[in-house]
Amino acid sequence: MLVTEKRIIRPEETSERTLEEIGRRAKAAEPVLRIMGTTKKNEVLLHVADALIKEQNYILGKNAKDVEIAKENGMEPGMVDRLMLTKDRIAGMAEGIRQVAALPDPVGEVTSMKQRPNGLMIGWKKVPLGVIGMIYESRPNVTADAFSLCFKAGNVVILRGGSDAFLSNCAITKVIRTALAEKDIPEDAVQLIEDTSRETVKAFMQLNQYVDVLIPRGGAGLIRSVVENSRIPVIETGTGNCHIFVDESADFDMAIDIIFNAKTQRIGVCNACESLVIHEKIVDAFLPRLKARLDEKHVEMRGDEKACAAAEGLVKATEEDWGREYLDYILSVKTVKNIDEAIAHINRYNTGHSEAIVTKDYANAQKFLNEIDAAAVYVNASTRFTDGYEFGFGAEIGISTQKLHARGPMGLDALTSGKYIIYGNGQIR
Amino acid sequence: MLVTEKRIIRPEETSERTLEEIGRRAKAAEPVLRIMGTTKKNEVLLHVADALIKEQNYILGKNAKDVEIAKENGMEPGMVDRLMLTKDRIAGMAEGIRQVAALPDPVGEVTSMKQRPNGLMIGWKKVPLGVIGMIYESRPNVTADAFSLCFKAGNVVILRGGSDAFLSNCAITKVIRTALAEKDIPEDAVQLIEDTSRETVKAFMQLNQYVDVLIPRGGAGLIRSVVENSRIPVIETGTGNCHIFVDESADFDMAIDIIFNAKTQRIGVCNACESLVIHEKIVDAFLPRLKARLDEKHVEMRGDEKACAAAEGLVKATEEDWGREYLDYILSVKTVKNIDEAIAHINRYNTGHSEAIVTKDYANAQKFLNEIDAAAVYVNASTRFTDGYEFGFGAEIGISTQKLHARGPMGLDALTSGKYIIYGNGQIR
Repeated sequence: MLVTEKRIIRPEETSERTLEEIGRRAKAAEPVLRIMGTTKKNEVLLHVADALIKEQNYILGKNAKDVEIAKENGMEPGMVDRLMLTKDRIAGMAEGIRQVAALPDPVGEVTSMKQRPNGLMIGWKKVPLGVIGMIYESRPNVTADAFSLCFKAGNVVILRGGSDAFLSNCAITKVIRTALAEKDIPEDAVQLIEDTSRETVKAFMQLNQYVDVLIPRGGAGLIRSVVENSRIPVIETGTGNCHIFVDESADFDMAIDIIFNAKTQRIGVCNACESLVIHEKIVDAFLPRLKARLDEKHVEMRGDEKACAAAEGLVKATEEDWGREYLDYILSVKTVKNIDEAIAHINRYNTGHSEAIVTKDYANAQKFLNEIDAAAVYVNASTRFTDGYEFGFGAEIGISTQKLHARGPMGLDALTSGKYIIYGNGQIR
Repeated sequence: MLVTEKRIIRPEETSERTLEEIGRRAKAAEPVLRIMGTTKKNEVLLHVADALIKEQNYILGKNAKDVEIAKENGMEPGMVDRLMLTKDRIAGMAEGIRQVAALPDPVGEVTSMKQRPNGLMIGWKKVPLGVIGMIYESRPNVTADAFSLCFKAGNVVILRGGSDAFLSNCAITKVIRTALAEKDIPEDAVQLIEDTSRETVKAFMQLNQYVDVLIPRGGAGLIRSVVENSRIPVIETGTGNCHIFVDESADFDMAIDIIFNAKTQRIGVCNACESLVIHEKIVDAFLPRLKARLDEKHVEMRGDEKACAAAEGLVKATEEDWGREYLDYILSVKTVKNIDEAIAHINRYNTGHSEAIVTKDYANAQKFLNEIDAAAVYVNASTRFTDGYEFGFGAEIGISTQKLHARGPMGLDALTSGKYIIYGNGQIR
């Protein structure tokens, strides 16, 4: 029996595969997926969606056990809700897979083909990344999402879900693997690492001979651990200390609507606003009106000296507040002399996610777009739009906050690489 | 005094900056480079090129000391030649910088801009990567090359050259920094790590709060060490176990010319051919003719059983040979039953660099292009073309053998990232 962080896994639930074997099986499945046609991939995805519905009672039964164990372990109700599956949520998972089937396949597109003076024709063709490792936390629907996106882009995926959702993830993976086998596709196109211990996840991050890229999805602690320990190239996702700068010329009503939306529409997400930067010339007139609106949702505001003087009821911010991703009804407020100070402050404390300016001034709008260093930079809109669906990608595997390979919301394209294809007729150097 | 691997560095040659300070200085210079216009960047590059010529006697003097120490340490003549600078080689470095100045600037291009149903205009704009770390071995001209490419794409660069070229690298960096200061550009746009000890290079790889990407250039050992130790995202470059598959239908003369070129034109480069794969139906007719041609350059051939039987003078290959990058006048020879076996063999042993097929068969050409997993896949041409200049990029910072971010020869485009710029008029979710 394997003992993981909080639970004991019964042998009948595990395949007892070693990581090495999981890696080898993934590599063996890779060539099949690499050259699979779009029609076949879509047919398989639709079959998997149907299988999830057909086997929903099996999945719900396993999920109920996860929920039971989580409650026994004293998990918070909000977290239990994220863990829990229902018929509706399984239908949502299946619908998500059908939507992925309907998306255009990025693989195989030759995005350029040029002739060199020596007659060589050199083209760049999109190809799958290969084997993708996903490390994620409690929500079991990520299991189906990650599989469908990786599969559509021709990739094999190795999943390592959180221990809380262990039985649910096993069940979902089993249903998907069975459906794959029914369509004569290697089951190992998706594998779940069944030992959720910290040692095993660390060993997984060393598997660079088998895994081409690792995508962690979860809290800041998980992502830091992956970046520090992985030998596999990582795409960092997630943490968002997002700012909104209210410029001197801002339309107050627009600024208040945008801030209210970005702060309170959903507090636990990475594109929520965590910090305001306000031009000092308008802070006295603007802040009391904003405070009144945010009071509707009992948002705590933590301000610098000028902000605290401008409206009643603000708490004094400490240096630490400027770098915090609260994920809560809390907002820090910094006043600045001009847009240069605003940009310097944001570029110092942001996490490279989403930043917005509210302004009527053309030059300041352009300056902000040019000089802010982040994945998504907005003029006069809520930071909440940084999302694969909102950007029109049809799906999202995460939001990259690094600069290599992909930046911002990652759709199917981010799950591809490319290769040069060269047509010659005997050329030598 | 700092003691590095083989030498003592005199205090007057070092700035005694800590890595932490180097990182902070790089980050401080980054915003200036991020928004610098193309005209200014080109003006600065041309000034740097002139400065290298003007200060050539200073650089040659320091290089002569490096060469003297290297000879005392018993360095091989071939390596000493790579280390040595001459007036012609400095002129070549300056000319390289002028060519980079003449290349189009990738930064600032908005490659797409689409309107969403809610009216948001979402564009993707190319931006610099930020701070690039380069770790490289003995050739001092890489110092000037890496600076010019990084600078043209708006990036700050931190260089860690080999200890053998220490004084040359210091001198070149000093000349560049002085030239930058003369044009009112932060000198810290380029910094050299002056402590070349192994501990310091390992500590450098942990500097992920300051460095956005690390590009190692050198032998397999260096690259493995970087991949294993770095917390900074790495672009792997270099190792090439490149194959040429001679299909049943190949034109023998074409195949022999291509193999002769790919194996012998330059043996020490990553795009040289290291292994042949030959269709067994033609091996008896083909191999003796090929052997006669390769004998001109005394190439040692190591074959499997059928290859050894097909021509005289082959050495028996071991399992190890299939994975070797010889970088020498040695070639392994594997016979196969058909193209599927050829593709499987190549995909198993290659390093993801460059692979070629010589064939007259349309279906086999397409199959090889589709199914081989490598950065560059050729039909009827020498693998030696995998190179930034040959591909028409005008310059090259290295050849990526990984699938993330960049694959194959990396020009200026590979030194950029992007960001989403979003124009709104009050949109909220």
